[in-house]
Amino acid sequence: MHMNEKGLSEKEIFSYLEHVKSEDTDYYKVLSSMCTRPHKIAVEAHRMFIEANLGDLGLFAGAHRLEREVVMMLGELLHAQSVNAQSAETPSGRPGEGSIYGYLTTGGTESNIQAVRGMKNLATAGKKIVGTPNIVIPESAHFSFDKVANMMGIEVKRALLDSEFKVDIVSVKSLIDANTIGLVGIAGTTEFGQIDPIEKLSKLALDNELFLHIDAAFGGFVIPFLENPQPFDFKVPGVTSIAIDPHKMGLSTIPSGALLFRSPSFLDSLRVSTPYLTTKAQFTLTGTRSGASAAATYAVMKHLGREGYRKNVQYCMQLTEKLVKGARKLGFEPLIEPIMNVVALRVPNPDLVREQLLKRFGWNVSITRNPRSLRLVLMPHNTARDIEEFLQDLKKITAEI
Amino acid sequence: MHMNEKGLSEKEIFSYLEHVKSEDTDYYKVLSSMCTRPHKIAVEAHRMFIEANLGDLGLFAGAHRLEREVVMMLGELLHAQSVNAQSAETPSGRPGEGSIYGYLTTGGTESNIQAVRGMKNLATAGKKIVGTPNIVIPESAHFSFDKVANMMGIEVKRALLDSEFKVDIVSVKSLIDANTIGLVGIAGTTEFGQIDPIEKLSKLALDNELFLHIDAAFGGFVIPFLENPQPFDFKVPGVTSIAIDPHKMGLSTIPSGALLFRSPSFLDSLRVSTPYLTTKAQFTLTGTRSGASAAATYAVMKHLGREGYRKNVQYCMQLTEKLVKGARKLGFEPLIEPIMNVVALRVPNPDLVREQLLKRFGWNVSITRNPRSLRLVLMPHNTARDIEEFLQDLKKITAEI
Repeated sequence: MHMNEKGLSEKEIFSYLEHVKSEDTDYYKVLSSMCTRPHKIAVEAHRMFIEANLGDLGLFAGAHRLEREVVMMLGELLHAQSVNAQSAETPSGRPGEGSIYGYLTTGGTESNIQAVRGMKNLATAGKKIVGTPNIVIPESAHFSFDKVANMMGIEVKRALLDSEFKVDIVSVKSLIDANTIGLVGIAGTTEFGQIDPIEKLSKLALDNELFLHIDAAFGGFVIPFLENPQPFDFKVPGVTSIAIDPHKMGLSTIPSGALLFRSPSFLDSLRVSTPYLTTKAQFTLTGTRSGASAAATYAVMKHLGREGYRKNVQYCMQLTEKLVKGARKLGFEPLIEPIMNVVALRVPNPDLVREQLLKRFGWNVSITRNPRSLRLVLMPHNTARDIEEFLQDLKKITAEI
Repeated sequence: MHMNEKGLSEKEIFSYLEHVKSEDTDYYKVLSSMCTRPHKIAVEAHRMFIEANLGDLGLFAGAHRLEREVVMMLGELLHAQSVNAQSAETPSGRPGEGSIYGYLTTGGTESNIQAVRGMKNLATAGKKIVGTPNIVIPESAHFSFDKVANMMGIEVKRALLDSEFKVDIVSVKSLIDANTIGLVGIAGTTEFGQIDPIEKLSKLALDNELFLHIDAAFGGFVIPFLENPQPFDFKVPGVTSIAIDPHKMGLSTIPSGALLFRSPSFLDSLRVSTPYLTTKAQFTLTGTRSGASAAATYAVMKHLGREGYRKNVQYCMQLTEKLVKGARKLGFEPLIEPIMNVVALRVPNPDLVREQLLKRFGWNVSITRNPRSLRLVLMPHNTARDIEEFLQDLKKITAEI
């Protein structure tokens, strides 16, 4: 593959791209991903703002307005409203000025990195840390925290899970020491779709004057639309920051993540000066960043409304119930009663089953680590018919091995 | 701005988006940005692969192929070919498998962060660092290195510049100590468009067994297409990694950056395990990431070819010469004879001139820090007519203040 001296024609290029695209899944028979096809209106809005660069806000005042509006809508969704009302002072130049404090990230990993970076900056500025600062996260935390641990020069301690795969509060408590700066709770774990006991984590955080970051990258667009949502957001007093990904269950385009803070001081702690731009400071991890994503997220959130997202979650939960019911008929129990649209299924020899499902029938499923089980995410791109077909294929394979 | 219970219609949303978009610049009268309108073919290819997630390579084999091909083309552009030929073993699962080692990032900031993270991981694994590891960067380095310094738990030392705003080798040398792990050189500084003496940095790096990262985020798509390109890439033996941004002079869509390594060990040092994906490891900073950008970059690179980029650079250099010539007629000298399409212009009271240019005539220009001068980037979105108009407006303003 070379860059030739002479360029190729559009026709030649798109004919090759069509061919290459046929190798992508298009999400058909995908039961392993927390992403899905973006909503049509998100794709159109993305296209419309394709050239907007949120790294240079002064040039893209329109895209910046959309970012602020999305951050406000997300803040409202996550019950940060009362916080705003309290903040009389809103220094200029902040992405979330006059509203929720936060910004649109490239996704959960950046949000988690930046939340921990904020903790570290505030904690080391505020109190005397003698050794290496540390944070306590659940054993179930996403692998992005391995990146945090590797980058940030802080220690990442992993608390045990209880029998329901929620973080064990006793274990968290036992790991807190003089150098602990913050805790992390997960609202929608990647493997089990479980929600940690956020209120208990909040109490621990408040008692020990620690930051509490909630990774709701997946759950943020699920939990608020469940019939009996568990508390996980800014309504819980100790929660200081939340990661939520519009490009997962928010049905927006990649890259669309968001990081929201309870307090402006948190965002301030991420400030670097930007001498040659139209603005004076930047709080984001990346420099140049997509305004198209802000427009896409704005469009899909306004178009669906709460009602649309509720329907979306109901649909996925119906598929989830259908799958669990069918699996039980085959004699396979889920590890936990699903809280959201993630199922961990106890099957014999899950690794072999996974391999066979892909090889023989084209199903993409994944595996939980401990215990090893079949992990299935029921997304808007799946259909009831898919689930029936999947159950038949699962039956065939498990009967033979 | 609320997320309503009921969603709005497409028509309502796009009518609002049209209104908001009018607040963006569309790059008209923008002389301050290193980004530009993406090429039409990049936009179309981006749209075509909008749902592809390079964070889950097994599901998107097509988009992954495009990423590998882009990385190979970039490696070829940056003279990494000879390296490939030497690498007999190519362990599986690497983004750049069988070719150049690297991957597509969200842009220069991620590339710079990851390059330094790789240095840190390799250096601390290899030799005994007693104190805090440090890197030596030029005073002219982009502000993304402030983020590196803040995140990474390493010290960032800044070397002085010479009279031409290149990094001063004597200053770099004086800052190297037992804890130094790497050097950074800039090929196309943000403020002056200057190129550091990469061959001298290379000698220093080799003599002291240090990594040498080149930030060619802007210059990577300029320098190879200049009439007499200065050595800055893998042809220079000490260069271990390069950042290059297709979303700047590469005319691709946002987010399109790239990080290339001389050796696979570098990429390996960024590895984290990815238990629940279709692949086993991830080397990237972000998790979910845009396959659309890979397709966009592929399309524009193949469509333009070397000839197309050469014409693009020639066009920008002609605008640059026109601007400098016109400025000289007004009595304003550039701080250095432009190397690429960036001009730092010595005018009286540059901050006031900048303000007036925007306020009275709508020109977006920026300011260099030290010394303060008018900074102008001549991009493909600018025209010869724009430059004439700009010079007239500059004349009016400088005559009055």
